Amino acid sequence: MKIKPLADRVVIKTVEAEETTKSGIILAGSAKEKPQVAEVLAVGPGGMVDGKEVEMIVKVGDKVLTSKYSGTEVKVDGEECTIVRQSDILAIVEE
Amino acid sequence: MKIKPLADRVVIKTVEAEETTKSGIILAGSAKEKPQVAEVLAVGPGGMVDGKEVEMIVKVGDKVLTSKYSGTEVKVDGEECTIVRQSDILAIVEE
Amino acid sequence: MKIKPLADRVVIKTVEAEETTKSGIILAGSAKEKPQVAEVLAVGPGGMVDGKEVEMIVKVGDKVLTSKYSGTEVKVDGEECTIVRQSDILAIVEE
Amino acid sequence: MKIKPLADRVVIKTVEAEETTKSGIILAGSAKEKPQVAEVLAVGPGGMVDGKEVEMIVKVGDKVLTSKYSGTEVKVDGEECTIVRQSDILAIVEE
Amino acid sequence: MKIKPLADRVVIKTVEAEETTKSGIILAGSAKEKPQVAEVLAVGPGGMVDGKEVEMIVKVGDKVLTSKYSGTEVKVDGEECTIVRQSDILAIVEE
Amino acid sequence: MKIKPLADRVVIKTVEAEETTKSGIILAGSAKEKPQVAEVLAVGPGGMVDGKEVEMIVKVGDKVLTSKYSGTEVKVDGEECTIVRQSDILAIVEE
Amino acid sequence: MKIKPLADRVVIKTVEAEETTKSGIILAGSAKEKPQVAEVLAVGPGGMVDGKEVEMIVKVGDKVLTSKYSGTEVKVDGEECTIVRQSDILAIVEE
Repeated sequence: MKIKPLADRVVIKTVEAEETTKSGIILAGSAKEKPQVAEVLAVGPGGMVDGKEVEMIVKVGDKVLTSKYSGTEVKVDGEECTIVRQSDILAIVEE
Repeated sequence: MKIKPLADRVVIKTVEAEETTKSGIILAGSAKEKPQVAEVLAVGPGGMVDGKEVEMIVKVGDKVLTSKYSGTEVKVDGEECTIVRQSDILAIVEE
Repeated sequence: MKIKPLADRVVIKTVEAEETTKSGIILAGSAKEKPQVAEVLAVGPGGMVDGKEVEMIVKVGDKVLTSKYSGTEVKVDGEECTIVRQSDILAIVEE
Repeated sequence: MKIKPLADRVVIKTVEAEETTKSGIILAGSAKEKPQVAEVLAVGPGGMVDGKEVEMIVKVGDKVLTSKYSGTEVKVDGEECTIVRQSDILAIVEE
Repeated sequence: MKIKPLADRVVIKTVEAEETTKSGIILAGSAKEKPQVAEVLAVGPGGMVDGKEVEMIVKVGDKVLTSKYSGTEVKVDGEECTIVRQSDILAIVEE
Repeated sequence: MKIKPLADRVVIKTVEAEETTKSGIILAGSAKEKPQVAEVLAVGPGGMVDGKEVEMIVKVGDKVLTSKYSGTEVKVDGEECTIVRQSDILAIVEE
Repeated sequence: MKIKPLADRVVIKTVEAEETTKSGIILAGSAKEKPQVAEVLAVGPGGMVDGKEVEMIVKVGDKVLTSKYSGTEVKVDGEECTIVRQSDILAIVEE
């Protein structure tokens, strides 16, 4: 089974806390803003979104920081994922 | 009897919970954001919506994830449906 | 006497509940969102509304679903009507 | 003395309740939305309003329905008037 | 000393109540909307304001109705003035 | 040390109350709107701000009225300054 | 490991309070607006952001004043950083 996000949406899967620590990132966000490292599982096509042309920059496999527990959580084939808009992604993390 | 949605609206019908589990998706949304798998029953024509050109991407028969209990519930010929805007649809689910 | 709605406004008259049931639609909206079947009595000219070109799609005689008790209720020649914007109309109902 | 409304503003004068009933309109608005029949006394020039071109459609002498007790009440030469924006006018009433 | 308002701002000075009554205008606004007759003392240059071209229509010496106690009160050389945006001016009053 | 404001920002320094009184301006603002005379210390380059072309009109040395205690207070080399946007400046005061 | 900010985002690292005092800036912001001197560690590519072309002006190594504790705090390789939008940067500080 496969989820194809629409518009500028991106399906991401939070990277485990253990793994996060190992890679050197510890997140110190406030309660309202809980950033987290996540891996990109699927990327929407972009295009016209809300009357504005959106180019998708993140790619499947990217490690990203998201701005908050934004988006909607879904469980696909047993895995917890989150669907966010690309604009909710703060940065790409490279190792 | 037939419902023809206007503009960027889509008529969807929630897929039964049993069926949802069988297909491997369990939804773990918060109270405010209750995503659900639904089937598309009718699709509006798109076009100029709120001064912006909207192209309809979902098709009748698509299984979709919606972002919330958004939209308006109606009962047509005994079936409970919901009318949402396409922008409230997060993703298309393929099996 | 005649009401000529301005801009993208539409004068509608709620179809009686009895008739609604007969035609197979029962509405199950929440308290905040009470959709209802209504008949279109008069249609504004459309054109530039709020800086955006609006084309009127509903026609006099159409049966429509409106998104809420939106609009303003008026009584014309003894008949209760509602003036809504076309964007508050969810769908056209065909029999 | 004369009031010249600016931009898309219109000076209206509520038609007396007696007269309203005679002409067949009784208004059944909710507390928040009190439509009323009013006569147009003066019309602004329209033109660029808030960055959008506005064409004035109502004319002096028109009977109009306004969407609420919107606008600002003034008393000119002993007569109570209201200054509203044309977009607050729902419809023109013809007899 | 002189105040040169920026953009679409206008410096106005409330006309005394006595004078107002003499000229035939008594204002019956609600508590939230207190219109008042004021004289224009200085007018900004207009031009691009918030990304929109604004043409100044009021002139020094005009008697105007303002929509509320909007703007900022200042005292210049002993005289109480108010700085408002032209869009807060409802109408020009002519005698 | 020098502060170079970005975009449409302006660094201003409040003129002392004594000096203000001497120049004939006493400010009678409400609690919410406390205008004050300030001197311009530095001016940003303007240009595209929020998708709109902004031309800087105030110059270093200008005496200006600001609409409120808007902006952010900083202390530079012992002097208290405020960084505001040009759109928060109501007027230029000339003597 | 490296953080590549997206769009108009900038990774900054607060300069220590001691260092701040030495360079002559003491910040006297209110509780809601706490400006701080920070050094720019990484700069996003700019480009189309929210439908508007954004040119990046700050450069890696710049000392900047940010308008508030805006943005999201992250810890990268043991260092506390903040990811802000360029529009949250008030000024560049030069020594």
